[in-house]
Amino acid sequence: MTNEAINYLKENEDRLLAKLNEFLAIPSVSTDSIHKPDVAKAATFVADYLNEIGFSEVEVQETKGHPLVYGAWNGAGADAPTVLFYGHYDVQPADPLELWKSEPFKPEVRDGRLYARGASDDKGQVFMHLAVFEALMKTDGKLPINVKVCIEGEEEIGSENLYEILNDKKQQFAADFCVISDSGMVANDQPTILYGLKGFTGLEFTLHGPDNDLHSGVYGGAVRNPAIAMAHLLASMKDQNEVVQVDGFYDDVEPLSTEERQLINEVPGEDYTSLGIPETVSEQGYTAMEHTMARPTLEINGMFSGYQGEGTKTIIPSSATAKLTCRLVPGQDPEKIQNLLVDHLKRHVPAGVTLEIKREPLSAKAYKVDPNNPLIEQAATSYKQGFGKDVVYVRMGGSIPVVEWIDSLFQIPVVLLGFGTPGDRLHSPNESFPLENFTKGMETLVYYYKQVKKA
Amino acid sequence: MTNEAINYLKENEDRLLAKLNEFLAIPSVSTDSIHKPDVAKAATFVADYLNEIGFSEVEVQETKGHPLVYGAWNGAGADAPTVLFYGHYDVQPADPLELWKSEPFKPEVRDGRLYARGASDDKGQVFMHLAVFEALMKTDGKLPINVKVCIEGEEEIGSENLYEILNDKKQQFAADFCVISDSGMVANDQPTILYGLKGFTGLEFTLHGPDNDLHSGVYGGAVRNPAIAMAHLLASMKDQNEVVQVDGFYDDVEPLSTEERQLINEVPGEDYTSLGIPETVSEQGYTAMEHTMARPTLEINGMFSGYQGEGTKTIIPSSATAKLTCRLVPGQDPEKIQNLLVDHLKRHVPAGVTLEIKREPLSAKAYKVDPNNPLIEQAATSYKQGFGKDVVYVRMGGSIPVVEWIDSLFQIPVVLLGFGTPGDRLHSPNESFPLENFTKGMETLVYYYKQVKKA
Repeated sequence: MTNEAINYLKENEDRLLAKLNEFLAIPSVSTDSIHKPDVAKAATFVADYLNEIGFSEVEVQETKGHPLVYGAWNGAGADAPTVLFYGHYDVQPADPLELWKSEPFKPEVRDGRLYARGASDDKGQVFMHLAVFEALMKTDGKLPINVKVCIEGEEEIGSENLYEILNDKKQQFAADFCVISDSGMVANDQPTILYGLKGFTGLEFTLHGPDNDLHSGVYGGAVRNPAIAMAHLLASMKDQNEVVQVDGFYDDVEPLSTEERQLINEVPGEDYTSLGIPETVSEQGYTAMEHTMARPTLEINGMFSGYQGEGTKTIIPSSATAKLTCRLVPGQDPEKIQNLLVDHLKRHVPAGVTLEIKREPLSAKAYKVDPNNPLIEQAATSYKQGFGKDVVYVRMGGSIPVVEWIDSLFQIPVVLLGFGTPGDRLHSPNESFPLENFTKGMETLVYYYKQVKKA
Repeated sequence: MTNEAINYLKENEDRLLAKLNEFLAIPSVSTDSIHKPDVAKAATFVADYLNEIGFSEVEVQETKGHPLVYGAWNGAGADAPTVLFYGHYDVQPADPLELWKSEPFKPEVRDGRLYARGASDDKGQVFMHLAVFEALMKTDGKLPINVKVCIEGEEEIGSENLYEILNDKKQQFAADFCVISDSGMVANDQPTILYGLKGFTGLEFTLHGPDNDLHSGVYGGAVRNPAIAMAHLLASMKDQNEVVQVDGFYDDVEPLSTEERQLINEVPGEDYTSLGIPETVSEQGYTAMEHTMARPTLEINGMFSGYQGEGTKTIIPSSATAKLTCRLVPGQDPEKIQNLLVDHLKRHVPAGVTLEIKREPLSAKAYKVDPNNPLIEQAATSYKQGFGKDVVYVRMGGSIPVVEWIDSLFQIPVVLLGFGTPGDRLHSPNESFPLENFTKGMETLVYYYKQVKKA
């Protein structure tokens, strides 16, 4: 049966590519109101496809923003697991257009890659699942598991309405596990399962000194310079060994097991020197991979004070501002960490300046699934069947809010099966996706959906 | 004789004010090429006045920029000292015009103050010296000392050509001492002799990290954040007690004598709380007045890195930049201090970033004259005669390049006799000068020029 579905995909390769190109040709740029009709058109494309495949329920659910496409097929019986497949049909803007070699919404194959906005993020990967559902349905007459589909149109603008919908319609979206293909592999042709994401919190703070910039000659020596006060305050938060010095910051961090360190160190390392840096610098006692994947971080995202023009302006700046964010790991509570940051700033603010804090309202908890979870093990097996190579397990420093929402609302494992590659240029001109990964990825999905069992 | 000159000034008060108003009405804005003819007109006004008074040599010296007016009168004989009087006839731009209550180039008296651009800085104070020369000449038939006058038209644009001219014509400008009235008193009606100015050096430096801003989730933990590296590097330069931590920074600083501390502490203190700061912060062991007047400083004038817009952008910035300047005291060599800063940065640059330094090309040595110098003592006596109050002696954190140039080229004392007041609004809308200070200031100058002896 498996082979039949895989054969079906091969036999229909040209037609499916043409259909994907039709999908990619719709400029469903969610952030630009001029594209609102295109976003709606892409939603209709997805809904129509689900109907064609034979989904029993298909709804284009209106939201305060762009619509969400829901689909369900419940014919596999109560013993079969139910998967919630999440993806998004909206894309990033294509500009600067002049940097594209072919037009962003006229898909073109060059050197084994399909070039188009959304080819990798996420229309291409969404299409792979839909094509696999088609292949299974056409060759088998049914799907091997019960399927719920949730394809939203607002991922690139922060999934503004998704949490509310999932929360309101918990019953409708309930499933045994979730699958998302909106990420990548660590290297071309290296099957990669993402089993953890970091959480997130942050704040902005300003040190206020004098009401106006002052003459540095006349007032230097009497008035605390907010910029040097800022330097001391920031330096007090993280030492030169990259260890965060905020009291309690590491208190709830799950320790990194020997087993997990081993998993991390099996991942092919990124070539950091290509970033133009002289060397990597990581938390004392941890490698760069360990720190980026599995240890919390505190970063300054922006900082400014005083004169920024050419040459010299001899002032004491009136104020200094810094923007900070932390990436959190399992165990850490974003709100608690934000409070610790605030406490630290209040306790360490130097004399002579006053502190103003703006808390970042968005936050997310870290997500992690046990790599030994049978659902993950089955994914790894299928991945190996599709790509002919053992998978590596990675945690990622980034945050994907939907993963945390599904985790917290449904308490189900989220299987992050990414088929993108490092060269896909997501969010940039000349986004593309390797054709080979469509083939191997769809094979992986056929194996997975056929083999996955209720945990 | 003295009284005769003072009586002359009183009798001619209205005519002299009308003449000053004529001078102030010329919009001699040196920075704006549209005013080039006005700047030339103001130079001619000064030269004509010198001729009227009876100066034996009067030259309008052309420069690469605006002209310099030279005048000399040598009739006082070899036993009398020769003074070099320096001032400037150019002014700052007047905009924003809408903030002026009366037009900047239509002088108007309100509440005992003369309102006009240049009333205090420096046309008004230059005019006082010229009027005193007139009064002495008219009542005495001669001046009590030999006089050389150097009135430039480029002070507000950095005295671009002055150093070269003074250096080329050392003989022409040679004198026994120099008098400048281009500063102010520490409080209304408080005679103030400025006996020291700080020197100056600076640099800008950038810490370069990755070639581009990076995703803080993906790379945080592997890549040193240039902003935190900057915070550590800046914090290493000056501690929270405002003590500069750059090796050798204080090595050549002249220690502050008990006597001088006493002089400084006699100066009426500025109300720093009006600046909006919670408290003053000064170098450990020194008061705010001692630090601003007589101790060297290191200030951050500007600092920037990464994202400065609204909200959050989760990046590791590609670089961080800071602009620093130091104010120096007697003993410190600007070039040596700049080298010490560079050495410190090179030694302390954190791992993972590369350092780029731009040295500030402008620099100045500090200037200080002994308050017990007879030329200064005579000025203090005259000042007391004019204002009826003991003088205070102040050093200033600012730098006036011409003072250092005259000091280094001619090795003569520079007597800084300022008659401005804290409310004069130099460089701002509604610049003004108290009429009373014209009267008292000119009396002071009559006494001084009559009494001053060769040192």
